[in-house]
Amino acid sequence: MRCRMLFQACATLLILLVTTGAGPADPLPSWSDGPAKQAIVAFVDRVTLPISRDFVAKPERIATFDNDGTLWTEQPLYNEMTFSVERVHELAPRHPEWRTEEPFSSILAGDLQAAVASDRNIIQDVFAATHSGMSVGAFASTVDTWLAKTRHPRFNRPYTELVYQPMLELLHYLRSRGFKTYIVSGGSTDFMRPWVERVYGIPPEQVIGSRLKLAFDLTGERPELQLQPALEFNDDGPSKPISIQQTIGRRPLAAFGNSDGDLQMLQWTTAGSGARFGLIVHHTDAEREWAYDRNSWIGHLAQALDEAPAHGWTVVDMKKDWRVIFPWQLRKGTSDGRQHQL
Amino acid sequence: MRCRMLFQACATLLILLVTTGAGPADPLPSWSDGPAKQAIVAFVDRVTLPISRDFVAKPERIATFDNDGTLWTEQPLYNEMTFSVERVHELAPRHPEWRTEEPFSSILAGDLQAAVASDRNIIQDVFAATHSGMSVGAFASTVDTWLAKTRHPRFNRPYTELVYQPMLELLHYLRSRGFKTYIVSGGSTDFMRPWVERVYGIPPEQVIGSRLKLAFDLTGERPELQLQPALEFNDDGPSKPISIQQTIGRRPLAAFGNSDGDLQMLQWTTAGSGARFGLIVHHTDAEREWAYDRNSWIGHLAQALDEAPAHGWTVVDMKKDWRVIFPWQLRKGTSDGRQHQL
Repeated sequence: MRCRMLFQACATLLILLVTTGAGPADPLPSWSDGPAKQAIVAFVDRVTLPISRDFVAKPERIATFDNDGTLWTEQPLYNEMTFSVERVHELAPRHPEWRTEEPFSSILAGDLQAAVASDRNIIQDVFAATHSGMSVGAFASTVDTWLAKTRHPRFNRPYTELVYQPMLELLHYLRSRGFKTYIVSGGSTDFMRPWVERVYGIPPEQVIGSRLKLAFDLTGERPELQLQPALEFNDDGPSKPISIQQTIGRRPLAAFGNSDGDLQMLQWTTAGSGARFGLIVHHTDAEREWAYDRNSWIGHLAQALDEAPAHGWTVVDMKKDWRVIFPWQLRKGTSDGRQHQL
Repeated sequence: MRCRMLFQACATLLILLVTTGAGPADPLPSWSDGPAKQAIVAFVDRVTLPISRDFVAKPERIATFDNDGTLWTEQPLYNEMTFSVERVHELAPRHPEWRTEEPFSSILAGDLQAAVASDRNIIQDVFAATHSGMSVGAFASTVDTWLAKTRHPRFNRPYTELVYQPMLELLHYLRSRGFKTYIVSGGSTDFMRPWVERVYGIPPEQVIGSRLKLAFDLTGERPELQLQPALEFNDDGPSKPISIQQTIGRRPLAAFGNSDGDLQMLQWTTAGSGARFGLIVHHTDAEREWAYDRNSWIGHLAQALDEAPAHGWTVVDMKKDWRVIFPWQLRKGTSDGRQHQL
């Protein structure tokens, strides 16, 4: 009798191990069964199945993701710019010179188009002015507070809910297959780190972004790292492969982006030997999100789209390839009322 | 009968699990049973035992190590400077201007003291001149080739064998207790990455060091990252906590150094809340390695040594605290003929 109980326990354990370890469940349920999803799954099998000729050892399985427009919405304005514009208004009383200095005077006048026209480096200049003058810890709290109280103008939800459900599934799927997932973004590291671990499961040491100068400050009771009003590194375009090399020191196996700012990251990644993977999220869905590419200042996409076929990069057609856009649409009908069965 | 066999199998498995998981073997056999070893073990228990009030979750267990003089010998000259001096001789035919330009003219004349006296930033200038003009991959091969053929002038062994056995044990011990071990060094990332994974078990993405400017180059058949003749970041002194914040984004729980170049990393680390640990390797053993501190240009140690008691930093007396210095001494008598029983 005792023996039979032991066998039953063993059998239960075996079933548990097998079903939790390698169940037949679809790891990408929010992706339509089209060529994009097929390309992803084929690539992952190719580099992770031990019988594959292109098998890659775990430590070399690096995947890099752009953030704005690739993992979360970047319209109608990069979310970090929305944060920065609000900070300009908040900080204006301490900066009387901004009343006449561009791009700040146009921002304060509420004319963002004029502000953009006034300053080729508006993002860098506005980040430098609004992310500095405090310690890294104090800035992280500022970001947390802002995210908790602010809602997206179109969707009326916190920005951290404006992340793409299919990309969350992709991040999880890659990690479940031994990949280390990194963010490589033009956004600032200090703006992303407070929330990306909670939202994407990406820890601070895997977040690479634009950087403000830091100063080590021993004047107070305890040493502090103070953010200085100068952008030291703008992690966009050719700076992306550079920051990948400097921080990771390995060429990624796979890179994911949505704009020409990701072009060189895609080029560098897919020029590596063996199996490599490049993917562009093409915003084609004005109904559920936005449709934009060549003529957009936000997330401008032209050259990378033109080069995609020659390089074999997968182009995601958001409208066709994604069954849902945002996580809350899994729990109820989508914004247009359709129900999704996943 | 079948039942008894099953029980025996279970018991064997249990014993295996218990003995491999938490055996009673000393994890630091090359450390004498003195206060330094006791402080290390007490700290590790304090932050990793779940019953401890100061328990820290695994992702926050970050330990940062200086390299030169902390993990490997830095005498009679920083090994990367020895490499660089040889490169100056090799590259001289292509640089006729070096015949009259300091510090190169003194280096070519074989007068290193004059070279050091001629240039306050000699390390940066010599790294910039000798680590550039090629791709990151080509430079890694240059380092590999040099390490394979070169022997240390005193010990007549490859530089990669001039690593400290007690520190190898410490790295391994910390990792076995859930720590992520990083190098944070004034040495250049590109000089360290080719060998530190093999020698220390530290992967490229956990190597933070000084950096040369990189350029993304699309002129050839494939994109390349080319090392430029300019030091972009000198990871010494106050730059160490800055590079830790920029790259890791978490304050370390423990930091290990040997010179005043590690002072701010120790200050930043041990100023954190909860249990923190700072350690200085004090070179006190002229017989087995070297004895130097306040009066040495290499590994200058004065302020950090003076501040150690007030901060509670552990100071390792190499002569007393380390039973062996180098790994090969485990396999035979030490350089002075003594045998070590570990």
